[in-house]
Amino acid sequence: MQVIVNISLKHGVLDPQGRAIGRSLSDLGFDEVSDVRVGKRIMLEIDEADEARARQRVARMCETLLANTVIEDYEIEIAEGDSE
Amino acid sequence: MQVIVNISLKHGVLDPQGRAIGRSLSDLGFDEVSDVRVGKRIMLEIDEADEARARQRVARMCETLLANTVIEDYEIEIAEGDSE
Repeated sequence: MQVIVNISLKHGVLDPQGRAIGRSLSDLGFDEVSDVRVGKRIMLEIDEADEARARQRVARMCETLLANTVIEDYEIEIAEGDSE
Repeated sequence: MQVIVNISLKHGVLDPQGRAIGRSLSDLGFDEVSDVRVGKRIMLEIDEADEARARQRVARMCETLLANTVIEDYEIEIAEGDSE
């Protein structure tokens, strides 16, 4: 099954990459953009049929390796229309 | 309104970061992981009430700055439960 992990900086943590993109967009004339935050999206293909167990395992992966839980939040999503 | 842009490498484009994560997960004992791909998730706060117009503007931003359309695909998503 395909599991997607969205990792984003916690509220209050400075996001210089988002800031830089926001400024560039404004320079390019996209003045309607008031805030930009950048995160990561990790797509995992996992040999596990049980959704609850997959979520649990992926949460472990996030805590151990994928996310820096001091400054980042993660969100686990099971991809729908899973055919693999 | 909050608009989310998911940027991922096109199929067939090598993803060394995903590879490295996959290897590390396997080293840590997460053997059920067969494939890892890493993408970006950009959250934009936009002063635009019309959803269709917001999508159109964000598509322009992707083509101009956010994505490298030679090797990357993008996907635009309007965040639900939008209160801002």
